Amino acid sequence: MRRFRLALAQMNAVVGDLDDNARKIREFIDEARAQGADLVAFPELAVSGYPPEDLLFKPQFIRDNMKQVERLAAHAREITVVVGFAMADGDLYNAAAILHEGAVAGVYHKMYLPNYGVFDEDRYFKAGTVCPVYVVNGVAVGVNICEDIWYAVGPTAVQRDAGAQVIVNINASPYHRGKVHFRERMVATRASDNGLFVAYVNMVGGQDELVFDGASMIMNERGELLARAKQFEEELVVADLDVDAVFSARLHDPRPRKEHPSIIREIGQAQVVRLSEQRDTQPRPPLPPPSIAPLKGSVEEVYAALVTGTRDYVHKNGFTKVLIGLSGGIDSSITAAIAVNALGAENVVGVSMPSRYTSEASITDAAVLAESLGVQLHTIPIEETVSAYAESLAELFRGMAPDVAEENIQARIRGNLLMAISNKFGWLVLTTGNKSEMATGYCTLYGDMAGGFAVLKDVPKTLVYELAEYRNAWPPAPVISRSVLEKAPTAELRPNQRDEDSLPPYRLLDPILQAYVEEDRSFADIVDMGLDPEVVKRAISLVDHSEYKRRQAPPGVKITPRAFGRDRRLPIVNRYHQF
Amino acid sequence: MRRFRLALAQMNAVVGDLDDNARKIREFIDEARAQGADLVAFPELAVSGYPPEDLLFKPQFIRDNMKQVERLAAHAREITVVVGFAMADGDLYNAAAILHEGAVAGVYHKMYLPNYGVFDEDRYFKAGTVCPVYVVNGVAVGVNICEDIWYAVGPTAVQRDAGAQVIVNINASPYHRGKVHFRERMVATRASDNGLFVAYVNMVGGQDELVFDGASMIMNERGELLARAKQFEEELVVADLDVDAVFSARLHDPRPRKEHPSIIREIGQAQVVRLSEQRDTQPRPPLPPPSIAPLKGSVEEVYAALVTGTRDYVHKNGFTKVLIGLSGGIDSSITAAIAVNALGAENVVGVSMPSRYTSEASITDAAVLAESLGVQLHTIPIEETVSAYAESLAELFRGMAPDVAEENIQARIRGNLLMAISNKFGWLVLTTGNKSEMATGYCTLYGDMAGGFAVLKDVPKTLVYELAEYRNAWPPAPVISRSVLEKAPTAELRPNQRDEDSLPPYRLLDPILQAYVEEDRSFADIVDMGLDPEVVKRAISLVDHSEYKRRQAPPGVKITPRAFGRDRRLPIVNRYHQF
Repeated sequence: MRRFRLALAQMNAVVGDLDDNARKIREFIDEARAQGADLVAFPELAVSGYPPEDLLFKPQFIRDNMKQVERLAAHAREITVVVGFAMADGDLYNAAAILHEGAVAGVYHKMYLPNYGVFDEDRYFKAGTVCPVYVVNGVAVGVNICEDIWYAVGPTAVQRDAGAQVIVNINASPYHRGKVHFRERMVATRASDNGLFVAYVNMVGGQDELVFDGASMIMNERGELLARAKQFEEELVVADLDVDAVFSARLHDPRPRKEHPSIIREIGQAQVVRLSEQRDTQPRPPLPPPSIAPLKGSVEEVYAALVTGTRDYVHKNGFTKVLIGLSGGIDSSITAAIAVNALGAENVVGVSMPSRYTSEASITDAAVLAESLGVQLHTIPIEETVSAYAESLAELFRGMAPDVAEENIQARIRGNLLMAISNKFGWLVLTTGNKSEMATGYCTLYGDMAGGFAVLKDVPKTLVYELAEYRNAWPPAPVISRSVLEKAPTAELRPNQRDEDSLPPYRLLDPILQAYVEEDRSFADIVDMGLDPEVVKRAISLVDHSEYKRRQAPPGVKITPRAFGRDRRLPIVNRYHQF
Repeated sequence: MRRFRLALAQMNAVVGDLDDNARKIREFIDEARAQGADLVAFPELAVSGYPPEDLLFKPQFIRDNMKQVERLAAHAREITVVVGFAMADGDLYNAAAILHEGAVAGVYHKMYLPNYGVFDEDRYFKAGTVCPVYVVNGVAVGVNICEDIWYAVGPTAVQRDAGAQVIVNINASPYHRGKVHFRERMVATRASDNGLFVAYVNMVGGQDELVFDGASMIMNERGELLARAKQFEEELVVADLDVDAVFSARLHDPRPRKEHPSIIREIGQAQVVRLSEQRDTQPRPPLPPPSIAPLKGSVEEVYAALVTGTRDYVHKNGFTKVLIGLSGGIDSSITAAIAVNALGAENVVGVSMPSRYTSEASITDAAVLAESLGVQLHTIPIEETVSAYAESLAELFRGMAPDVAEENIQARIRGNLLMAISNKFGWLVLTTGNKSEMATGYCTLYGDMAGGFAVLKDVPKTLVYELAEYRNAWPPAPVISRSVLEKAPTAELRPNQRDEDSLPPYRLLDPILQAYVEEDRSFADIVDMGLDPEVVKRAISLVDHSEYKRRQAPPGVKITPRAFGRDRRLPIVNRYHQF
């Protein structure tokens, strides 16, 4: 039985940190070589980090990233390496280098360039046209990149027809909730349809609004999961593939076998490159059976994504500590809990900024939370500052009733205080608003929206509650008190204010927002879901009129199929109304 | 001599305002018909407005815009209409409808989809493959869209080979400084290369960060300008084209004539659609010779773009009045002057917010400016509010020297006051920062960056001075006093502060910023321009470290080849450094 020992390096790259990304790649190569791997694969654009965005327009950046690949090639000895980088060759390509015996033995150019959602790859890259198969130690390996594997009639099919036994598909696939299941099902189908191994290596870690969730995997020729890396953590997966099974699978495939010259012509040209024949049966270190990391539950997964995204945004931007305004509400409570898991309690500072409208319960809840999380808490009352503004504006506002202007002043004083502390001590401010607020504009620009990173930006309010319950179930004890979970949501910017004075109840609002924002469903469609037309109208109007606020919002972790930010691009000047 | 009377409707559409865009289109059709035009052409996506961005993902939006086209068709009688809209037909196309005798007689699908700079057309549209020529009243008219005309070997060449005498190219071409010259030269070349008339109709007006500058034009078969519409204003251009000259030009073209079947195969299929033969020589209203509007000077053009962009952002978002913090500096002075030209002096309100660091000269300069522009000025001293913050933070900041934290508090108090007035009275806040500040981060997030629209966001400081000199030359008298023009730039946030304490002098800084931000030139290249390496390093570092601020900045008018915003997409987490 012929075995091919394959390693997948699920790494956390940093955009632009070419030296450090290359250092990490070398370390993984060494580790894979020590384990006797024939080949080790790294994620898409592992050298540059993903997505490098308009850095790709800088010729110097492209040259620098290509130099790293040349240096890495020198390190690829006694092991073949597949690594993602940006390749300039007349045009620019999203590429995979095949490094073998100290040289760049081949380069694959990504053929299917995603240009939807958060992706802008047509902005940068030209599509490839060649589907190479590399014979490595006698085994035929087809290399392709990310989106390529999502097409049934794509390079994988061409490479199979050219003899590939193993497909190495390198990825930087951003997380959203539950995507891992969809992705595994697709990869399994691709493997069994083509009767070959598919090794899917993903990036891990946070980059601005994106989190890469890892969960790299190897499927055998029957579409069975051989190995799966952990979600959200770096890991080297190593597995022995019984490549003879591929031929056996093909012989026994009841579907008629044909060559598909038409596919090859339409999709791209197959190309077989013989790098090395089957190596002598030399002793290799024995390998434990590859592990299949369990997948996280649905809420657990979101929590882990938020922790990962927050940790990496803070650290990769060079910060150590963060600052959070603690109102005693559920949003700031769960934000603080996430920050503590991401950064450690000693790196999270809470600030309570009570006004005359802040209830005793809120003040207590904030203090109890800080205590249970073990974070520092400072208290800065804002009443005197509110008065100073009121006096400044008294003449101009004479005879006018208090309204949202006065409410926003309070929120903006808090924003200003947080930013002053941030500027003084070099701590990053985390904002605490959730997706339901962001969608409806139920938040104050330069007020509670002021900060560097919006942890819950893509988390609907109803999911905020689920996250809190999930986190509270951790041993040894709940961190968010029942009173926080049970009180009616309020911004406490005027007497007896409740979110539901301005917004539909969140259990009605959130499904409307999902349908409208994430699924582009029409007013009529949403009403057909059984919702009150007036409530739907109100929710849609709020979303449509809040684009200007979102445009000035800090980034936050994408956890749904469509987040605010790069993922959803709407004009501010927009007079479109369906009703 | 056969004449084809062609009208170009240079209109200002509003994104999403389908009803009102269609109303305007009908009015232009009526006007063109009254002038006896054979055909009237409207800009790209005139029905939906441009760019509709992710509105295009809403099926209801697409259906609504297509319904408008059906209604417009009924209005197209005794005149042929070419109008841009979004066409769903299996896939989605950036399309031009040809409306004739009350029906949709044909639809052209844009073939070259721009996906660079501010453009994301691959995100939405599929490319067309057919190059139609419509015979209208006996004249062969090739229709294509915007980017299509920028390719020498593109639909224009195919349509010429299929007999086109006139190309109608419909556009939504965003302004940047001097682009009009480049565009006219290209259109002239295309006309003379192919020996046919090219009618180029452009949109006009502002949409978020973009301004469409109009300057629609007709070139004859020798590449000579027959007609040009004004820049930045709506206009209907009508001209008689001597279409017989096209055949004459081709007969006398010394270059050998060939059919280009290979071009047709690669580019798209030609298709000739006969709509109507030459109409009887019926009396038509006589036409004055078409006018050729003069092009504005380079600085005049920028000023007009800023006025247009500001006016449309304010009005299209439903605002009437704006609010500007007047510091007595040149940026706020020219911003106020632009606002007055855009909206009228009665719709501009100035606020002076002096602190202990504000000089008497600054207070006077702000008052003199308000007086000379005829705008209201309110004065709100911030010293008491500064003290309130200082007291709040005294304990936390004990023993620490004043630094940028205290400076930013002042800027943010001003931001907060402006926003409070904005919230109370419903006036939009215009920010006053320029591109040099935005590039280097020499501005305060939530402070002087707080507001709805950043008029000078894409205007380098050195150009700010040119704009002020330009505006001051208008009769009857200068509006910005010499003292404002001559004093050293300062933020006045600490004693004796000068911009040059923190930044290189603007005359050195601006060329570096242009090279680095707009042209992606490397550190080494910029030093080779003859600049001090230390100054270049400092400038580049400032740009690289300010991305987080720009991500939360309000939109502003694009006037350079690359503005901050949709036009330049850089990651915040970015550890790339060239030195």
